[in-house]
Amino acid sequence: MNITIWNEYRHEQNNPNVAKVYPEGIHTQLADILDAYGYTNVRTATLDEPEHGLSQEVLDATDVLLWWGHKAHDEVNDEIVDRVVKRVLDGMGLIVLHSGHHSKIFRTLMGTTCDLKWREADEKERLWVIDPSHPICADIGQYIELEREEMYGEHFDIPEPDKLLFVSWFEGGEVFRSGCTYQRGRGKIFYFRPGHESYPTYYHHCIQKVIANGVSWATPSNTTKQQYGNVKPLEDITGKEYE
Amino acid sequence: MNITIWNEYRHEQNNPNVAKVYPEGIHTQLADILDAYGYTNVRTATLDEPEHGLSQEVLDATDVLLWWGHKAHDEVNDEIVDRVVKRVLDGMGLIVLHSGHHSKIFRTLMGTTCDLKWREADEKERLWVIDPSHPICADIGQYIELEREEMYGEHFDIPEPDKLLFVSWFEGGEVFRSGCTYQRGRGKIFYFRPGHESYPTYYHHCIQKVIANGVSWATPSNTTKQQYGNVKPLEDITGKEYE
Amino acid sequence: MNITIWNEYRHEQNNPNVAKVYPEGIHTQLADILDAYGYTNVRTATLDEPEHGLSQEVLDATDVLLWWGHKAHDEVNDEIVDRVVKRVLDGMGLIVLHSGHHSKIFRTLMGTTCDLKWREADEKERLWVIDPSHPICADIGQYIELEREEMYGEHFDIPEPDKLLFVSWFEGGEVFRSGCTYQRGRGKIFYFRPGHESYPTYYHHCIQKVIANGVSWATPSNTTKQQYGNVKPLEDITGKEYE
Amino acid sequence: MNITIWNEYRHEQNNPNVAKVYPEGIHTQLADILDAYGYTNVRTATLDEPEHGLSQEVLDATDVLLWWGHKAHDEVNDEIVDRVVKRVLDGMGLIVLHSGHHSKIFRTLMGTTCDLKWREADEKERLWVIDPSHPICADIGQYIELEREEMYGEHFDIPEPDKLLFVSWFEGGEVFRSGCTYQRGRGKIFYFRPGHESYPTYYHHCIQKVIANGVSWATPSNTTKQQYGNVKPLEDITGKEYE
Repeated sequence: MNITIWNEYRHEQNNPNVAKVYPEGIHTQLADILDAYGYTNVRTATLDEPEHGLSQEVLDATDVLLWWGHKAHDEVNDEIVDRVVKRVLDGMGLIVLHSGHHSKIFRTLMGTTCDLKWREADEKERLWVIDPSHPICADIGQYIELEREEMYGEHFDIPEPDKLLFVSWFEGGEVFRSGCTYQRGRGKIFYFRPGHESYPTYYHHCIQKVIANGVSWATPSNTTKQQYGNVKPLEDITGKEYE
Repeated sequence: MNITIWNEYRHEQNNPNVAKVYPEGIHTQLADILDAYGYTNVRTATLDEPEHGLSQEVLDATDVLLWWGHKAHDEVNDEIVDRVVKRVLDGMGLIVLHSGHHSKIFRTLMGTTCDLKWREADEKERLWVIDPSHPICADIGQYIELEREEMYGEHFDIPEPDKLLFVSWFEGGEVFRSGCTYQRGRGKIFYFRPGHESYPTYYHHCIQKVIANGVSWATPSNTTKQQYGNVKPLEDITGKEYE
Repeated sequence: MNITIWNEYRHEQNNPNVAKVYPEGIHTQLADILDAYGYTNVRTATLDEPEHGLSQEVLDATDVLLWWGHKAHDEVNDEIVDRVVKRVLDGMGLIVLHSGHHSKIFRTLMGTTCDLKWREADEKERLWVIDPSHPICADIGQYIELEREEMYGEHFDIPEPDKLLFVSWFEGGEVFRSGCTYQRGRGKIFYFRPGHESYPTYYHHCIQKVIANGVSWATPSNTTKQQYGNVKPLEDITGKEYE
Repeated sequence: MNITIWNEYRHEQNNPNVAKVYPEGIHTQLADILDAYGYTNVRTATLDEPEHGLSQEVLDATDVLLWWGHKAHDEVNDEIVDRVVKRVLDGMGLIVLHSGHHSKIFRTLMGTTCDLKWREADEKERLWVIDPSHPICADIGQYIELEREEMYGEHFDIPEPDKLLFVSWFEGGEVFRSGCTYQRGRGKIFYFRPGHESYPTYYHHCIQKVIANGVSWATPSNTTKQQYGNVKPLEDITGKEYE
């Protein structure tokens, strides 16, 4: 079980307020979470590394990829985007966090704009559990409360999720589908909203639990590569006259 | 209510066997169907027209677009693909027919390969109704039988449909999700499998009824353009200290 | 197109505050709405009529049934419940309003408790549109705002909706899946949350529009009665030796 | 992790042909499968035991229940049905096998008739994988082939599955949604079609793998009991005048 955590890693280097919250980068904090949950093969990759740290070799060895990006979506090379998308369709799990909703990878996999409403106003968010039977909601009570977060509001321009797991309430009057799962090809995708760079969201133990649950859920399950293209019949076909 | 029928229109001009079945092109036969169902503003467009017959003006005036393409998917200009995809997200209905599953437009909107198994063997197809409550299945009995069709078989690499309407049985031993609906943005999409160019499928009255039903279902319903981006709060936000 | 509006009609007769809002009963106000939208064959039925106003004859002639009930769910006769459920499975559309979530009919069709959180506190509700492409959301903008309503909160113990159309934000901190569609048998079901008896919710033009849209959507669409039970094969079955 | 396998256990005692295939009952064969997959706390229960072997104590200690019933659905006591349904809504996983589609338990949880077409004609069934990413399809290739089975055909009168995992092709010309998952309350449900009493279906290693996968998937995941009923607000509610 190999996990790769990808982070844009720009805010933390350029903005002292963010650096105070995540001095070693959001990716390091995410790695610490997974480490605490007992995952042993966790590596990180960032935008400014060669190939953004996502060589074909790294991706081939990755079972679940986490993705945090925000202001530099356009700097992600299209070739790398294609590489990641192909690996997801080929079975790699993908956890898209917060502003990753606008990443090329997520938009390509969704086929929609993934636009939404947003606001930075230090407001309260409360994520309500919608499907208590789902393994990603395990050990979460009825809701998660975050004292201050960025607001994301509906309409969120995504395809209807396979499963809707969380809906957020925001102090300013909006709601948002904050936890959504999708199947694409042989890969499983989990979008999870919280995690603005200037708030200590990834230190919240419920948020950590959801992310750990998400990684476990998105792990590929010995899926079989399917056969496509021209095939021979499995049964005899009777030549019939068309009437 | 304006309908545009797009057809690649190559097989009919290059292959005498196809020309015998659709002497004036598949698009003309599809137009005749919709005409018979009382649709009055039906135009056609084909690959070899300027801008493939799909100028911005034409698309802006189109409520539902039907799409039949096969061997020349790559010749469809990327700019026109973008234009069509944007119009779908903006509310235009889209009916994707048969081999249109591999069109750039459908693949972009789905986010997957849309690969499948296929075989040309003059075999029988039987499309079973899966959701008898759905308006697209109106007036169809329990199944539609086609004496000879091309086979498409699972696995069909698409996102889970919002609604699965038909599943096909094939003589050679395969099954296929033959009628699928999707919502993308403010647009409605219906994929309908049958319609290989060398068979008289579009002369079958049940197939015609499903297509007419599909056009009616995919018609935009006074959808409201949603607001995206930065927004002001609708409620007062109390400045709170983060604990 | 025949519509029957069913109302428990107790609050309006026993509670002066409710009588002030709906002097002739909620059913009469709902009938006025549909009348204003041009529906001509609208009848009403109430709990205290013989057979609750829902004889087999009335139901057989009903295309869409609206249901408002609250404190007397237990007084609805089980035989009538069975009759209504059978008609829904047989194609009749069903619009379940507000506290009808706990009616025997809805619970039987859902298979779950349909429990939820609730509170009467004169608080604001804002229903956000989740699927702007859906005909039930036609002509509704981005949200509907109700100055005062009863709160219903998640977790709402229902099966995953076929389509989620509205999510409510409540002033007191909760969210709720306020507009949900389901297919059951050949019938279409729309659950729509707002409409507490002490508030003038059914005088709000957006709420009225959603109800009119819902009736139109739930109208049966020439669905075909399906054949069940023992059937003869449609194809030859080769006697084969089991290995 | 405690598993209870429930079997009607009548065919095996009354019909020599069935007894030849399952001399110790279908439940014993199912227990052997789970034993081989390493499950240790597996018990069985049958119709003719007191309380059908399903005392409250047994159910409370059961994490996943498997259900095989056929000709004696009516003999299952309504009180026990209620008990099982409540436990499912409370989190217990449920695997419904073959003719269990018509059990009171499944029909109650679905809210529909669960009717279907059927035929006993020693015909071939081929179950195609529809969602290769799903853990229940792990290690299954593209399809499972059964030389002889009873036919179940569409239309299958069920609610739209949360996930459709298998679609069957039958030699006689029908198709069927053979693997379906549902969430109800905090419980997960998996319906799996194959397993007619007169065929050695439960000796087929792929069928065995799917059942083992299903048990693993349906295991409750530390779900949280949700709070329902009247609740206090989490946020201040401003008294507002209604306009």
